[in-house]
Amino acid sequence: MSTQRPPQDPESHPRVKAVFDDMRAIRQTDFVNSFWRTLAFDPDLLERTWTEVKQVMAMPSLLDPVTKEMIFIAVSVANACTFCVHSHTAAAKAKGMTDAQYAELLSIIAVAGKTNQLATALQVPVDAVFNADTAAPR
Amino acid sequence: MSTQRPPQDPESHPRVKAVFDDMRAIRQTDFVNSFWRTLAFDPDLLERTWTEVKQVMAMPSLLDPVTKEMIFIAVSVANACTFCVHSHTAAAKAKGMTDAQYAELLSIIAVAGKTNQLATALQVPVDAVFNADTAAPR
Amino acid sequence: MSTQRPPQDPESHPRVKAVFDDMRAIRQTDFVNSFWRTLAFDPDLLERTWTEVKQVMAMPSLLDPVTKEMIFIAVSVANACTFCVHSHTAAAKAKGMTDAQYAELLSIIAVAGKTNQLATALQVPVDAVFNADTAAPR
Amino acid sequence: MSTQRPPQDPESHPRVKAVFDDMRAIRQTDFVNSFWRTLAFDPDLLERTWTEVKQVMAMPSLLDPVTKEMIFIAVSVANACTFCVHSHTAAAKAKGMTDAQYAELLSIIAVAGKTNQLATALQVPVDAVFNADTAAPR
Amino acid sequence: MSTQRPPQDPESHPRVKAVFDDMRAIRQTDFVNSFWRTLAFDPDLLERTWTEVKQVMAMPSLLDPVTKEMIFIAVSVANACTFCVHSHTAAAKAKGMTDAQYAELLSIIAVAGKTNQLATALQVPVDAVFNADTAAPR
Amino acid sequence: MSTQRPPQDPESHPRVKAVFDDMRAIRQTDFVNSFWRTLAFDPDLLERTWTEVKQVMAMPSLLDPVTKEMIFIAVSVANACTFCVHSHTAAAKAKGMTDAQYAELLSIIAVAGKTNQLATALQVPVDAVFNADTAAPR
Repeated sequence: MSTQRPPQDPESHPRVKAVFDDMRAIRQTDFVNSFWRTLAFDPDLLERTWTEVKQVMAMPSLLDPVTKEMIFIAVSVANACTFCVHSHTAAAKAKGMTDAQYAELLSIIAVAGKTNQLATALQVPVDAVFNADTAAPR
Repeated sequence: MSTQRPPQDPESHPRVKAVFDDMRAIRQTDFVNSFWRTLAFDPDLLERTWTEVKQVMAMPSLLDPVTKEMIFIAVSVANACTFCVHSHTAAAKAKGMTDAQYAELLSIIAVAGKTNQLATALQVPVDAVFNADTAAPR
Repeated sequence: MSTQRPPQDPESHPRVKAVFDDMRAIRQTDFVNSFWRTLAFDPDLLERTWTEVKQVMAMPSLLDPVTKEMIFIAVSVANACTFCVHSHTAAAKAKGMTDAQYAELLSIIAVAGKTNQLATALQVPVDAVFNADTAAPR
Repeated sequence: MSTQRPPQDPESHPRVKAVFDDMRAIRQTDFVNSFWRTLAFDPDLLERTWTEVKQVMAMPSLLDPVTKEMIFIAVSVANACTFCVHSHTAAAKAKGMTDAQYAELLSIIAVAGKTNQLATALQVPVDAVFNADTAAPR
Repeated sequence: MSTQRPPQDPESHPRVKAVFDDMRAIRQTDFVNSFWRTLAFDPDLLERTWTEVKQVMAMPSLLDPVTKEMIFIAVSVANACTFCVHSHTAAAKAKGMTDAQYAELLSIIAVAGKTNQLATALQVPVDAVFNADTAAPR
Repeated sequence: MSTQRPPQDPESHPRVKAVFDDMRAIRQTDFVNSFWRTLAFDPDLLERTWTEVKQVMAMPSLLDPVTKEMIFIAVSVANACTFCVHSHTAAAKAKGMTDAQYAELLSIIAVAGKTNQLATALQVPVDAVFNADTAAPR
């Protein structure tokens, strides 16, 4: 059940086909998930979104692929995005995240979630030492 | 301005002093930030919170210290915790996060925040291939 | 599956029946969705909630009905409310939102979600020019 | 106080200067706010972010400028982004949002926030009629 | 700094004056906080909001006043509402919440925040036993 | 469907068995829910999480068990944690929360969610009287 019907034959649209072909080449699989199939109702939005996801998540960069997926999972959990948590946890595992690394990721997300709530509850003032303009930070 | 007055002389309480001493030794600085100084109003809560933060964030583990701080920042941003974003961005930089790594972290947080909203708006059903019970995941 | 059993025969309660009748008349359909059927376990809470939803969303006002639904969707997406995203996207479409308008709504929600995260990560100070007390704003 | 020091002389970097010049031309003001000045620490991230914000928010489109800003405000409020709420409320007012329209926007955000919580608390199942694949929606 | 200028002389408007008088009588203080003073820019929105806050929070009910404030604080912390966290923590203390009760409240908010993240990360399916329609719940 | 396969025979691990046995004794039921069964993939994370949940939620304390569950529900709703909302609403009912108390809890969560959004939208400055360092609070 979704809020938008995916197009019946998305790849009949040349820009959608180009995006799906690029995705298949980069991810080395024929599978295109429901997010992209549904987003194809608007080829322009699909194309712009894929261009950005590809640039940030699929291109070689300073951070390794597993680290990038772990950061993505952390945001998706805090934002309670069911689909994203599923798809990016699967992606992290496919890229090599072990059970032990996943347990450590969960521990960090958990302690961050916890201390986020405590600091927000206490409304602690930000120490001047954290100011990037002046600080020898800690 | 905070919601709870920090104790005037927190280290007169032996359990608070023990926590602050441990923190100073591990972080190799005399500075104790406002979060811990305020939390000291309840020595038990302070002690339990520090024990967990220390265990997850300060002990050697599978993930390197900068990666751990980047994950912590990602959660704190999504939870809009002002103090935590400040303190953990400063911590990540103190542990060696470069401007280029920080820019990449921001790019991942941004694209995750964006696609989280899109997937939640579309209410895309989770593909069966993402199911950890059965999947050869992607 | 829900956390509260909906009453078996909600309209046997006169205040529930009055709310459902009003809803049917205003929405010009016999259908009453699961949210209202479940909320009927407490006729007072049902009545107060419907009164407010009706006043804000169903009465003629400055903003047109599709715009109002789009704003409602935007909040519901950011709050990750599955039921609300579904029911209000369907409502917006029933009131005339086109696929092209929906794609634009998604684009705005996406870029807002993205820049929200960036601004929160950077903890950018609010420029004085934005202060409503003094500003010729930009 | 921010987490990242803005560059001292951002416009000495040609790509930053190009973005700021484009922004000034489109917004018809010399003022560049702190968000963009801070993001300039990474010219690539600045450029990509501005390109998207410009495309979605500043180019003529189906939705009028005030409606677009109201949707942006709605997301920013739900995500608790202080800077974004300030800057986009000021922008909406600069583009013509009246006090009466703003009061209606607040009423919609408020009732959405409220019913979001109620529906999430009740975990109401989504009615089949809302399914975009099959529905004559309500 | 706020997004909306509070009216200069709010009580010159009879409906605003009536709300403020009612608030002063119920709260037994002359002080009217900035939230209400700012909301007075729209007397109708002010009146409707106060009516609801008064009905839920200030009238005698099943739950005692401190418990009600603690629940309000819990929601406000999770929603990262700075003003609300401040005003309702102060209110809870004024109504008798002790430091020990506050520490316990913080502990519950913290463990909930933590396990919320874990359960969302794991995407654990909801056990049938929790279904209110059928359950002998646990 | 979950992101992590629960171990096939979790209680073959002695630390998992010890946690499950402790849980059964304290909760006086043989049932162990899916959250704990899945978390058992990492016995250390399971043990630490249970120790904290037990300490905060299951041990006698200043707040009564139903109040504690109501606060837990409030946080879980605001964080949109489906599993947590289900499990803790069921727990609250099992511990004696009546329909009338639940309706009042929902009313408080709803009005908090609503005024959270209003205060965040208005970016109301925090009144000095709320400062815990100086205040005779209201």
